[in-house]
Amino acid sequence: MDSIQPIDWRDNTLYLLDQRALPQQQIWLQYNQAEEVAKAITDMVVRGAPAIGITAAYAIVLVARQAFDTYGRAWKQAMVKPLATLAKSRPTAVNLHWAIARMTALYETLPDTASAEAVLLKEAQAIHQQDIAANHTMGKLGAALIAKNSMVITHCNAGALATGGFGTALGVIRQAYADGKIKQVYADETRPWLQGARLTAWELQQDNIPVTLQAEGAAASLMATGKIDWVIVGADRITANGDVANKIGTYMLAILAKYHNVKMMVVAPTSTIDWQLPTGDAIPIEQRSAEEVTAINGHQIAPEGVPARNPAFDVTPASLIDAIVTEAGVVLSPSLDNMRTLL
Amino acid sequence: MDSIQPIDWRDNTLYLLDQRALPQQQIWLQYNQAEEVAKAITDMVVRGAPAIGITAAYAIVLVARQAFDTYGRAWKQAMVKPLATLAKSRPTAVNLHWAIARMTALYETLPDTASAEAVLLKEAQAIHQQDIAANHTMGKLGAALIAKNSMVITHCNAGALATGGFGTALGVIRQAYADGKIKQVYADETRPWLQGARLTAWELQQDNIPVTLQAEGAAASLMATGKIDWVIVGADRITANGDVANKIGTYMLAILAKYHNVKMMVVAPTSTIDWQLPTGDAIPIEQRSAEEVTAINGHQIAPEGVPARNPAFDVTPASLIDAIVTEAGVVLSPSLDNMRTLL
Repeated sequence: MDSIQPIDWRDNTLYLLDQRALPQQQIWLQYNQAEEVAKAITDMVVRGAPAIGITAAYAIVLVARQAFDTYGRAWKQAMVKPLATLAKSRPTAVNLHWAIARMTALYETLPDTASAEAVLLKEAQAIHQQDIAANHTMGKLGAALIAKNSMVITHCNAGALATGGFGTALGVIRQAYADGKIKQVYADETRPWLQGARLTAWELQQDNIPVTLQAEGAAASLMATGKIDWVIVGADRITANGDVANKIGTYMLAILAKYHNVKMMVVAPTSTIDWQLPTGDAIPIEQRSAEEVTAINGHQIAPEGVPARNPAFDVTPASLIDAIVTEAGVVLSPSLDNMRTLL
Repeated sequence: MDSIQPIDWRDNTLYLLDQRALPQQQIWLQYNQAEEVAKAITDMVVRGAPAIGITAAYAIVLVARQAFDTYGRAWKQAMVKPLATLAKSRPTAVNLHWAIARMTALYETLPDTASAEAVLLKEAQAIHQQDIAANHTMGKLGAALIAKNSMVITHCNAGALATGGFGTALGVIRQAYADGKIKQVYADETRPWLQGARLTAWELQQDNIPVTLQAEGAAASLMATGKIDWVIVGADRITANGDVANKIGTYMLAILAKYHNVKMMVVAPTSTIDWQLPTGDAIPIEQRSAEEVTAINGHQIAPEGVPARNPAFDVTPASLIDAIVTEAGVVLSPSLDNMRTLL
């Protein structure tokens, strides 16, 4: 069940599966320069909060190599600027900062006199493998909440492609399907970037899990049929009280779920939790370009010059969420107190 | 303010502005055969409930001409089959049946011995002009409900392009903007057919009314800012109790509006009301092809073979609607009793 892994390190090089070309083409891009990795994150060659964190960890291996090759003993000082650039590549996912902090804490303990590349690579690989292991743990914990013959809606792609492999929301769906608990998955197509149509449908199709696409606007009428049991999504940042930033449209689904008595599950590793932020109001929301709305695949769909509002994420308050599933445990009815059980 | 009129009859020929090619191209298609008009309705050359009704009325002029030319005195009998085909061109909008019934009631009173073309054309033109007049009346009635400096969301296209001219929901928005009451219009892009991006943005841009596009999934986060006053939409069928079938996604907006204390206005002529149906549960919902979701402009976006759910409409219960605006008056808090005030 680990057929898809979007991030690969071999021959001293980072390889990323270009998620902009899927599902029509499977193109692997190679990276030896950290600046190019930062640009790949901004341009969404790789996306999904955990995958961004893992990618950043490998990028820091490349930064350390460049820094030592160029500056020798002054390599730590030379790390500062490239890491700042990397930190700015996407604003909302906190896993990016988590990975940078973990790698920084390690390299600061290392001597100035030797290349840190090998030690940092081992740490990046540990982050990568721990993410995959965490996904399997979350898969089991989340699947345990689901009754037999359930129908679920997922949004965006919180799958193998958004992680080291297996997936968060799709990890739960994969495990629950393997356990005979899921009858049908509905995937929102997820405009403007179409992650649901391009990535989630492709992933589930690869694993022969029944998936049906729908436009975002169709989710409410599907819930009105009374056939949907759960909405299952990932997260880009979770605050201390259990508020969740995730792909634009998640907050819509949470309100619709509450209205129709459908349950709402958020699946994310603890690296997604930003304990520094008390509530979701403080989460920075990335505003992406109008062109992502006014054109599709370079084909203009709206009249020239019309403005578009394009927030990449929205914030779902904890009160609309039934369960947050992490590798450290499940938080039911998330709140400041209930979230603390993860610590 | 009547710059855009999508239906034109001249030189004994029906012309339709091809709404599939907008906004990139303005192409007028001409029709002399009723079967081709039925296909144009199915294929969405013309769409929007009132515009479909007007188009059907003109199509019946073409049917009558063909019938008399071919069958002479037996022309009324020859009308039956083409009118049945026309009635099946789209299942949800009731204005189609309303127009067919009105034209049928007229031609049944006419003699067998003469061509009915001229009399039926006069009736079709009356239907067309009455629709435009009704839109202006609705514009004034709807605008009266709106406070100064309002921000509104509209969905799909309920504009000049969906009617004889001026528009239903966009008629209210045009009038309210002219009255200085509207500061900003947000248009949902309206997947899968992108009527918001292609048609509504174009119409409002033509009239210099400030419009900003957004993906459907972004409407909830916009309402959460507290800046939106009204959702204003059209309708394809309204039942006796005030339930409303409209473009897929309308029901979503109505739930989100209720959750955020945003008001919900439906604007439609009385020809949209199906007094025969007690509630929205009985409205037939058109299911369109999966390809409209899995491809955009002929470009495949999803993996080959993935199924898609593509209902063209959904039903919003009357309890989620604050006002139904018709040319015969406004129904606040629609219900079976309150709807009867229109009779």
